[in-house]
Amino acid sequence: MFEPSYDRYSRPLPGAFGRERKILSVRSPQRLKLNFNSQTMKDILKDLQDIAGTRARASYSERLCYATDASQVEGLPDYVVRPGSTQEVSRILRLCHEMEVFVTARGAGTGLSGGASPVRGGVVLDMSGMNRILEMDLPNLQVIVEPGVVHEELNRRLSSHGFFFPPDPGSSAMCTIGGMISNNASGMRSVKYGTTRQYVLDLTVVLADGRIINTGSRVLKSSAGYDLTRLFVGAEGTLGVITRAGLRVVPVPRSRKLVLAAFPDAETAGRAVQEVFSAGITPSACEILDHITLQVLKRCDPGLKLPDRGDVILFEVDGTESSTLESARQIAGVCRPRATRIDIAGSKDEMDHLWAARRLVGAAISRLDPNKSRIYVGEDVGVPIREIPELLRKVQGIVNKLGLPAMKYGHIGDGNLHVALFIDPCDPEDRQKALQAADSIHRAALELGGTVSSEHGIGLARAQYMKDQVGESLTVMRAVKKALDEKGILNPGKLGL
Amino acid sequence: MFEPSYDRYSRPLPGAFGRERKILSVRSPQRLKLNFNSQTMKDILKDLQDIAGTRARASYSERLCYATDASQVEGLPDYVVRPGSTQEVSRILRLCHEMEVFVTARGAGTGLSGGASPVRGGVVLDMSGMNRILEMDLPNLQVIVEPGVVHEELNRRLSSHGFFFPPDPGSSAMCTIGGMISNNASGMRSVKYGTTRQYVLDLTVVLADGRIINTGSRVLKSSAGYDLTRLFVGAEGTLGVITRAGLRVVPVPRSRKLVLAAFPDAETAGRAVQEVFSAGITPSACEILDHITLQVLKRCDPGLKLPDRGDVILFEVDGTESSTLESARQIAGVCRPRATRIDIAGSKDEMDHLWAARRLVGAAISRLDPNKSRIYVGEDVGVPIREIPELLRKVQGIVNKLGLPAMKYGHIGDGNLHVALFIDPCDPEDRQKALQAADSIHRAALELGGTVSSEHGIGLARAQYMKDQVGESLTVMRAVKKALDEKGILNPGKLGL
Repeated sequence: MFEPSYDRYSRPLPGAFGRERKILSVRSPQRLKLNFNSQTMKDILKDLQDIAGTRARASYSERLCYATDASQVEGLPDYVVRPGSTQEVSRILRLCHEMEVFVTARGAGTGLSGGASPVRGGVVLDMSGMNRILEMDLPNLQVIVEPGVVHEELNRRLSSHGFFFPPDPGSSAMCTIGGMISNNASGMRSVKYGTTRQYVLDLTVVLADGRIINTGSRVLKSSAGYDLTRLFVGAEGTLGVITRAGLRVVPVPRSRKLVLAAFPDAETAGRAVQEVFSAGITPSACEILDHITLQVLKRCDPGLKLPDRGDVILFEVDGTESSTLESARQIAGVCRPRATRIDIAGSKDEMDHLWAARRLVGAAISRLDPNKSRIYVGEDVGVPIREIPELLRKVQGIVNKLGLPAMKYGHIGDGNLHVALFIDPCDPEDRQKALQAADSIHRAALELGGTVSSEHGIGLARAQYMKDQVGESLTVMRAVKKALDEKGILNPGKLGL
Repeated sequence: MFEPSYDRYSRPLPGAFGRERKILSVRSPQRLKLNFNSQTMKDILKDLQDIAGTRARASYSERLCYATDASQVEGLPDYVVRPGSTQEVSRILRLCHEMEVFVTARGAGTGLSGGASPVRGGVVLDMSGMNRILEMDLPNLQVIVEPGVVHEELNRRLSSHGFFFPPDPGSSAMCTIGGMISNNASGMRSVKYGTTRQYVLDLTVVLADGRIINTGSRVLKSSAGYDLTRLFVGAEGTLGVITRAGLRVVPVPRSRKLVLAAFPDAETAGRAVQEVFSAGITPSACEILDHITLQVLKRCDPGLKLPDRGDVILFEVDGTESSTLESARQIAGVCRPRATRIDIAGSKDEMDHLWAARRLVGAAISRLDPNKSRIYVGEDVGVPIREIPELLRKVQGIVNKLGLPAMKYGHIGDGNLHVALFIDPCDPEDRQKALQAADSIHRAALELGGTVSSEHGIGLARAQYMKDQVGESLTVMRAVKKALDEKGILNPGKLGL
């Protein structure tokens, strides 16, 4: 298996691509590294252009654009194709299957684990051009979309009809539905609404050999054989390429309220979250911003109505006007004994302001020091919610010991903590520390019965932890992969398979 | 593939079992029918008794008890074993795998599709004795149970803590959690709460060769590889035997209200349902009782506050006191233009009375004629909710043409219609008509883009429609089955695989 390369910052990008072409052997379980000769390379390009015209390219500059996603994982593709239809994808896969060329599908490239990085070369399928909303089938409570539709655009269209698609990743303004499905994305509202998984009713999928299947229908509920829909959700493109999706949508709640509760420390905050759940309240969002995050946000926007110290939980509730008021007051009541400050945000403006700040968090950290950057490693662990205070304590211990500044924020209602490590990416020692911290954070989550990824996916960045996390299940995953993609051409090197 | 036998009523049961033993060939994809000699049969019993002691049996009377579930599908097992632990199940499966003996796991046998009927003989694993609630892990919003726990018992235990497990099948008083998971059971409240699928956090599964895996953890949210949990949910025991489950539970809502709306006919009722959803209301239950169902219920309990004619929809809403009142009034407002009568049930007693009547429906039909019985064929179709009025019209046409009495009721908010056909099971002509009606009902649902099973499962009773419903996906399901159970020993003959 390939190890991820975190050396992207230390040398000019092109240098990272001086690799031989890696093509797969069919019959051997061993993956071989072969070189096609340049004539074969040209023949493949011609075949791809026969299918997709000028949307099939092999110029160095274009390939470079598709070498990585938003993570530190990279690999130069040999070809880039921007397919326009399911049929084109099918023809491309049939070709690649026959010629044994790797294929990595990609949406907007906002992923944080290298899931869309073509680490072994081959073809990148850029699905972002298949971005039509095919049907607003609202009488059946669903929409039919192509995978390249951007999340925010979908919700903008839906909102005028009084509906929304609940999964809500931080990258909403850019990320595509296909990427969300492939990573089982979620975000702030999954504490009440669940993850992408539970909103997918049907997928059109092109299999490794070019066959096209539909995994579901427009029925809201069915018990008819294996749940292939959810097998492809979260599979990170390793089992097939999604070219069309039927998504369940739900009515926009008529009212929302936000409770801001500040606590003396993160552990106390974690305990308050547990108490809110135990009181039978299900908030529609439940986010932690630790004291460092607060400082960073205040530096970005001094006008933000956030406390100057302590650790904050933002609880959102939604529903009818009366029920949200009732629930917000109940949350305030549960938090009061431990909290240093409690506010209930009344106006939409006030709420929008706080949420906009929350969304800025990932980028805002650069305000601490313009020479440092956030690095996305160890950033997506999750634990059973009872273990949240312990996870917070351990993470603080890890970063303190290494002397790394770190913000802790995230979807604490799901047990999902985003740790933002902050380093000088040109400093080898800093980079080493970040990797060490990430490793310790992953292992801490696993020790607490947790997961190395709650919502960002495994890709290559977290592949090395799969065996420790899922144990013998990994052999079952490998068997499923082999059953659907015998030659292993789809998104190789990912998920620890 | 075996065809279901609907001849159970016409001849004495033992006659149905004069079959040769059918054992599977390992290497050939063809399934062979071999006879073990009586010494081998005895040796296998001895081996099973070495594992499970006197809980492994082979007497004719005991085998007869396990020949069928609540459907018309039957098959006599050769052995019955009541395992007591995951380890025992593992040892049994290792033995059966080696000896190529079929294994069919079974919960309470309340299934309506033959999913638990050992149609090719072999071992029945009666899991109902593994019925401990292992842990009420409510701080993590979950419970850990063995598969034999009865649904109602689980919810009785949970209710004292203010929680519940939302899937809600009609057989709640008998059915087991293992059976619910294997069929992706749901029931009245899935319109708001979803099906069993979305409440399973972790499964311990014994694979065909005896290996034991865990598919998840206590984390509420994870994106770490293929979703094996949901691969086993709804697999009807064809991929592994579930021996332990971690289930997400949710707080009991503080208030419920029931709106009873009567309409001149079922199609108009179906239209009203659509309008309620389009208005952005998500009821916690949405049930139709057609005019024949009303007559039957009134005969059972003349005191029931149900109208004498028309077709009724029961809308339930849950939440806080104020929000339920608000939503109930809104539903009444949406229905008013089409309804002939609208009541909002105020008291808990009144609601309980109506729901108890609703639960009686399946059995109550016998009041129409004591010589006739309900037959469970074609009873679980579902369509996209926009097609509900058309499905109701088609089903009425089908039963009218055949002159069969039929009640139509079910979870109309999911598009799921239960058609209760009512025949003299000793009359071959009646039986023939019922099968004909069922076939037409299944085909009508498929023509409308629907499913032959919304919640009861495929088993053997609906296996013949799988190809028409899922198309090319069936080959993918077969590949997955082969990857996990190469010898095909687990619950053979089911799902059309």
